[in-house]
Amino acid sequence: MRPRSSGTTSRRRATLQALILAGGSGTRFWPLSRRHRPKQLLALEGQSSLLQQSRARLDGLVDPADTWVCTTRRLEAAVREQLPEVPVSQVLAEPEGRNTAAAIGWAVRSMPEAVRGQAVAVLPADHRIADPAAFGGGLQVARRAAEERDRVLALGVEPEWAETGYGYLEVGAPLADSPGLRSVVRFTEKPDQATAERFLASGRYLWNAGIFVFRGTTLLKLLGRYLPTLAEGLETIASSPGRLDDVYRRLPAISIDHGLMEQLEDLATVPLACGWSDLGSWGALAELLPADDAGTVRRGDVVAVGADSCLLWAEEGTVAAVGVQGLVVVRTADAVLVVPRERSQEVREVVARLREAGRTELL
Amino acid sequence: MRPRSSGTTSRRRATLQALILAGGSGTRFWPLSRRHRPKQLLALEGQSSLLQQSRARLDGLVDPADTWVCTTRRLEAAVREQLPEVPVSQVLAEPEGRNTAAAIGWAVRSMPEAVRGQAVAVLPADHRIADPAAFGGGLQVARRAAEERDRVLALGVEPEWAETGYGYLEVGAPLADSPGLRSVVRFTEKPDQATAERFLASGRYLWNAGIFVFRGTTLLKLLGRYLPTLAEGLETIASSPGRLDDVYRRLPAISIDHGLMEQLEDLATVPLACGWSDLGSWGALAELLPADDAGTVRRGDVVAVGADSCLLWAEEGTVAAVGVQGLVVVRTADAVLVVPRERSQEVREVVARLREAGRTELL
Repeated sequence: MRPRSSGTTSRRRATLQALILAGGSGTRFWPLSRRHRPKQLLALEGQSSLLQQSRARLDGLVDPADTWVCTTRRLEAAVREQLPEVPVSQVLAEPEGRNTAAAIGWAVRSMPEAVRGQAVAVLPADHRIADPAAFGGGLQVARRAAEERDRVLALGVEPEWAETGYGYLEVGAPLADSPGLRSVVRFTEKPDQATAERFLASGRYLWNAGIFVFRGTTLLKLLGRYLPTLAEGLETIASSPGRLDDVYRRLPAISIDHGLMEQLEDLATVPLACGWSDLGSWGALAELLPADDAGTVRRGDVVAVGADSCLLWAEEGTVAAVGVQGLVVVRTADAVLVVPRERSQEVREVVARLREAGRTELL
Repeated sequence: MRPRSSGTTSRRRATLQALILAGGSGTRFWPLSRRHRPKQLLALEGQSSLLQQSRARLDGLVDPADTWVCTTRRLEAAVREQLPEVPVSQVLAEPEGRNTAAAIGWAVRSMPEAVRGQAVAVLPADHRIADPAAFGGGLQVARRAAEERDRVLALGVEPEWAETGYGYLEVGAPLADSPGLRSVVRFTEKPDQATAERFLASGRYLWNAGIFVFRGTTLLKLLGRYLPTLAEGLETIASSPGRLDDVYRRLPAISIDHGLMEQLEDLATVPLACGWSDLGSWGALAELLPADDAGTVRRGDVVAVGADSCLLWAEEGTVAAVGVQGLVVVRTADAVLVVPRERSQEVREVVARLREAGRTELL
């Protein structure tokens, strides 16, 4: 048993801390997603939630004891329940959402000093990765570069189509000191269709997956330089924990992408081909789930008569569809959504109307 | 007051008995219609059910005390509750449905002798009539012909389009003795499209609305001639009420159209233009209900974003529809149906599958 045990110990020494961001409150999976049950808490595939899958994907790479989760108070109890293997003290609940720079900075600053000297991987809780092995390989490369070269990295996904809904990383030269790494020339936010097609054709662009790797101490240093107000706030909270609520609510609300990563001269990337998807809509989900011979995905109690290329989802009750094509139908105990697959991102209009009408019971 | 009171009395003397057939168990309005709540009990327009509208339409023509309702035991309580103005003893509940010849024969045979000597109008409980005044006028013409000439009449609706889903009456010569009446040459069941178009163009065909008028005693005599087994059964029940269940369940199950009306040599008709519809599907209903500017009918808690020409019906919970055209969406507490308007009659496929699967809770 010795060699194996010693091997485990040596893997343990080269520790990667995982910081899972689980505070999101999107509306794109309404009526299934709600304020108290956003996308990352939903089991959109199989039995486990996206949050649980995000943690399970790290098995063998990051120990649960080295996992941190940043969420909001509204979701705290549900997150703890879904991830019982993560130490309770490492599930951090923001007093309110202040975007990713604050969430990441606060979580890293909350780590014990010895821990935040290690490499930290920031991982969104609500994405899907079809090939966890490829993902794990990329993460290991990034960890080594952070640990050994003190690099800051944004993992980049090799684009599969000319997506206009994602951010892109423009890739520069390979980095001589780090095999597998490339420099990042710049960030480009959601491009128009023509630009997206040019990006795809050029082979010089990667999708920004919002996955970052750095030493925690390095991140805090960089926040001090590029977001000094945020960094000061985090120090105040660290020295006076009683002021958390008060100070946190006034932290600058900016994304880590805009606030920091886009400013860095020497950001590096690891190109990944791992079947990544941000699952941005019911339509995107429908592409991924197993379908019947007519191309229709069914979940729950569904009666489909001549339903082609649909997503029919009964969380509660029965969904019956006859003679329809390319529709998303999602039924919960209190609502049903009907929308064409290719327009499913427009569910936000429904949520906006419900919000305007004060229909909080449906939000 | 005298003249008016005497006028009323004289109208009373020329009494018309109404027999409302309310035993139907259709599936075309699933998921709203169920075994215990079929179409005639539903408020598909406004606040009152089709059954209640069928009775209300007779106000001024037929007194509630002269109204008879034939339904099934499953629906008996609901029918009594919906029509409190009809004498309890005149709501007749079949042990089981045996089609319209048995229902009509049994109801007429159950009327006291003096009553069944009068004119009786048989009225389906689940149709819609947009112009009750025109309908009432036609019924009066038919009543007089039954009363004064002992005629048997089928009211015929002037066709508005080449419908293939209805039965037709081919009309013969005007009847010399009865102004407004025509002879019926033959019944034609649901024709194909070309035939329906020929019928419409010819001007010689009327839709069979299933509304018949006759003296009760005459009807019983005709049953004795054309359906002697049925007539015998009815006499057995009349003389031995205790044998109702036993005998009724073995009565020939045939429609009054096939079993009797089609056999008659001297059937007469009153052509009617009264905005009649049998409300045969969700799509047919959608044509009749008031719509918004986009042609969409909404009922209940509906959020529609760019929904054109739809029927969006929330009996319970919320229906949200985005970017859809020509769809029927009906949500109940336990199910939702999604079907294109023009295919809405195919809901029967759903019901058939539920039946096969033993899903009685949804039937």
